[in-house]
Amino acid sequence: METITREAKVRPSSPFLKASSDSASLQRDQAPDRKAMGFVLVHAGAGYHSESKAKEYKHVCKKACQRAVEKLNAGALAVEAVTAALVELEDSPFTNAGTGSNLNLSGEIECDASIMDGRSLHYGAVGALSGIKNPVLVANRLLSEAQKGKLSAGRVPPCFLVGRGAYHWAVDHGIPPCPSDQMATKCSLSAYKRNKRKIELAEKVECSAGAQVKRSRQSSGKQNGSGSLDTVGAVVVDWEGNVAAAVSSGGLAMKHPGRVGQAAHYGCGCWAENAWKLNPYSIAVSTSGCGEHLMRTMLARECSASAQSEDAHQALLDTMQNKFISSPFLASEDCILGGVIVLRCCRCADSEPSADLRALLVEFLWSHTTESMCVGYMSAQDCKAKTHISRLPPGAIAGQSLAIEGGVCRLGSPVD
Amino acid sequence: METITREAKVRPSSPFLKASSDSASLQRDQAPDRKAMGFVLVHAGAGYHSESKAKEYKHVCKKACQRAVEKLNAGALAVEAVTAALVELEDSPFTNAGTGSNLNLSGEIECDASIMDGRSLHYGAVGALSGIKNPVLVANRLLSEAQKGKLSAGRVPPCFLVGRGAYHWAVDHGIPPCPSDQMATKCSLSAYKRNKRKIELAEKVECSAGAQVKRSRQSSGKQNGSGSLDTVGAVVVDWEGNVAAAVSSGGLAMKHPGRVGQAAHYGCGCWAENAWKLNPYSIAVSTSGCGEHLMRTMLARECSASAQSEDAHQALLDTMQNKFISSPFLASEDCILGGVIVLRCCRCADSEPSADLRALLVEFLWSHTTESMCVGYMSAQDCKAKTHISRLPPGAIAGQSLAIEGGVCRLGSPVD
Repeated sequence: METITREAKVRPSSPFLKASSDSASLQRDQAPDRKAMGFVLVHAGAGYHSESKAKEYKHVCKKACQRAVEKLNAGALAVEAVTAALVELEDSPFTNAGTGSNLNLSGEIECDASIMDGRSLHYGAVGALSGIKNPVLVANRLLSEAQKGKLSAGRVPPCFLVGRGAYHWAVDHGIPPCPSDQMATKCSLSAYKRNKRKIELAEKVECSAGAQVKRSRQSSGKQNGSGSLDTVGAVVVDWEGNVAAAVSSGGLAMKHPGRVGQAAHYGCGCWAENAWKLNPYSIAVSTSGCGEHLMRTMLARECSASAQSEDAHQALLDTMQNKFISSPFLASEDCILGGVIVLRCCRCADSEPSADLRALLVEFLWSHTTESMCVGYMSAQDCKAKTHISRLPPGAIAGQSLAIEGGVCRLGSPVD
Repeated sequence: METITREAKVRPSSPFLKASSDSASLQRDQAPDRKAMGFVLVHAGAGYHSESKAKEYKHVCKKACQRAVEKLNAGALAVEAVTAALVELEDSPFTNAGTGSNLNLSGEIECDASIMDGRSLHYGAVGALSGIKNPVLVANRLLSEAQKGKLSAGRVPPCFLVGRGAYHWAVDHGIPPCPSDQMATKCSLSAYKRNKRKIELAEKVECSAGAQVKRSRQSSGKQNGSGSLDTVGAVVVDWEGNVAAAVSSGGLAMKHPGRVGQAAHYGCGCWAENAWKLNPYSIAVSTSGCGEHLMRTMLARECSASAQSEDAHQALLDTMQNKFISSPFLASEDCILGGVIVLRCCRCADSEPSADLRALLVEFLWSHTTESMCVGYMSAQDCKAKTHISRLPPGAIAGQSLAIEGGVCRLGSPVD
């Protein structure tokens, strides 16, 4: 798989369309299977991934890709495959989603998650949800229930539920509850204690500084650096060419109870839109990073809209630079933290036009302003997933510069 | 004040830029006052406003405009004036916001509200909030706290809080709690009982119909018609030319507990953006109607973006037609319910360029697909507000056609 890394200011033309991929060469050696077509790209968060934990992050990305591909090979649509990938990512104690989520100021776990189906353009989301092991399952169920049409007496079904209401809706719809203490890990509990001490100390200093409180509040921003912001997500294209995207997060460590971040916010956490009249490409996007930064820039939707232009790589580079790092919506921030994965596909023009199913050209990209971002990807015909921890180039400053990488693969069709 | 009404398919050129307004003529007769400049446009919801209650709706719109103008005349910025208008709208027992909000399935009041400051581009929102009389005050406080910079230990301040967490944050920040039963009205309680019986009856019919449940769920949509969807909102421009927008809602009647609608959703409930390099106009937007429809089309942001084109009236007409009624995001819906108010302003080119403060040209518009929408508007130099219940033209079908109206006024400057 050919990938490239560069900083924002270097903008050569994209080599992606010329690249050949392992997936493509592997596919040519196999008998094509109508259902064994599709592609998944996952992320275990944009933030900071220590070398010591790199193996675990890569391992969970690999497993998440495998779960999605198992679904694709069984004929599932993109929205089911992306859900399966997310469940695996949420179940890992190493990611900040589901089990192992950051604890909030009160020492509780409150999760955000959302999912979007590019075929129906339906969307489901949960925010500040406690007591459910896999928040993405609730988001997915909200999406599928909404697709069934109106409720009794003509009521519009909800697409976004929060807090206790979301919990009760989930349990009423057969999703089992899970005690929060089973979702906390040794690591999340010790981080909570450490963070609590840090806040107490910082507030003591602020109190004694008196009038300088405001200044102290502003300048302390850099202490957080790019921190640990391991929101997870995935994007999938299925054998029919439908795209889907999902995202799940435990939110910022020590957040205020009830705080909802980008993972639950429409247009901010994920986006998926099949090709239609005005849009030549099917595109799916999932984001990660500081929720407030991703929300106020609506990064998922912005990346999706810009990726309809001819050069997806250049479009993503421009969006990350102009609509994220230099966004007027974040003018008061000096450290803009986020990452994004993008999957774009279209039917290949050179494949048999009369065929029931034509070959798909899939471009996949990731970009981040955080120190690192862990990704995995796999086509339905690959034997195993590839994983990678992308890091900012040496000397680049997190929150002010970016890395961008990706690849391209051609997925075959039964008539090849 | 010159206003026009028409259906979507008739698209004459906008007469707005030529219209003279009462506000403008009144202003010319008065001594200009640096602070007595600004304009407010409010709505008491897009939905159905019976003739019998028309007087009350107009009265509350009038009072809301007066509150905003009092603030403007005292030198307050747009964001404070828009908050004052919203408090008045929330306090009315006739609107579906604050006191008098719709009850949810459990018979509780859960409110959504958000505010956006076009100057700082900051945003604050609360969702599914119980026990606070004026949700907009919490949204406004979240906005102003976020503008102060980071919290202790470099934590990012929240911009969106929900449920119990939002309640505790509000109380901790000095916003007084209010027992929910004091916010319910005789009218909201009797509507709850009526709706509950209606749902029980509908579910009985569905149960006995057995296999036909799905079909029944879908076809029952029209029973709701455009219902009572009286989300309230306001848009303001102040003497400095800053814009702000806000929205507040009790949500759909009989919604599931924890359901959050467009009023709390970034880009969906309200939008405000001062003019800057790429955008010649300052624009503020507030929406009302079926939350799920407004969310999935991101109507507030779409209206704002399109209103940067030359003809604001044509742009709003096109947006309501192509990005709302005919939106691919709502392809499965047969009745698209929503309304929007838009305020657009720019410095007049013919006013003294060297002046400290040049005249402002303010265009104000409203459009809705619901049967009616109640609006009020007032310049800081008017003696009283004008109010109006806009209705669909005779024969037009709610959810499938639209009305659009508006006006223009020139606000003077100290050098006139």
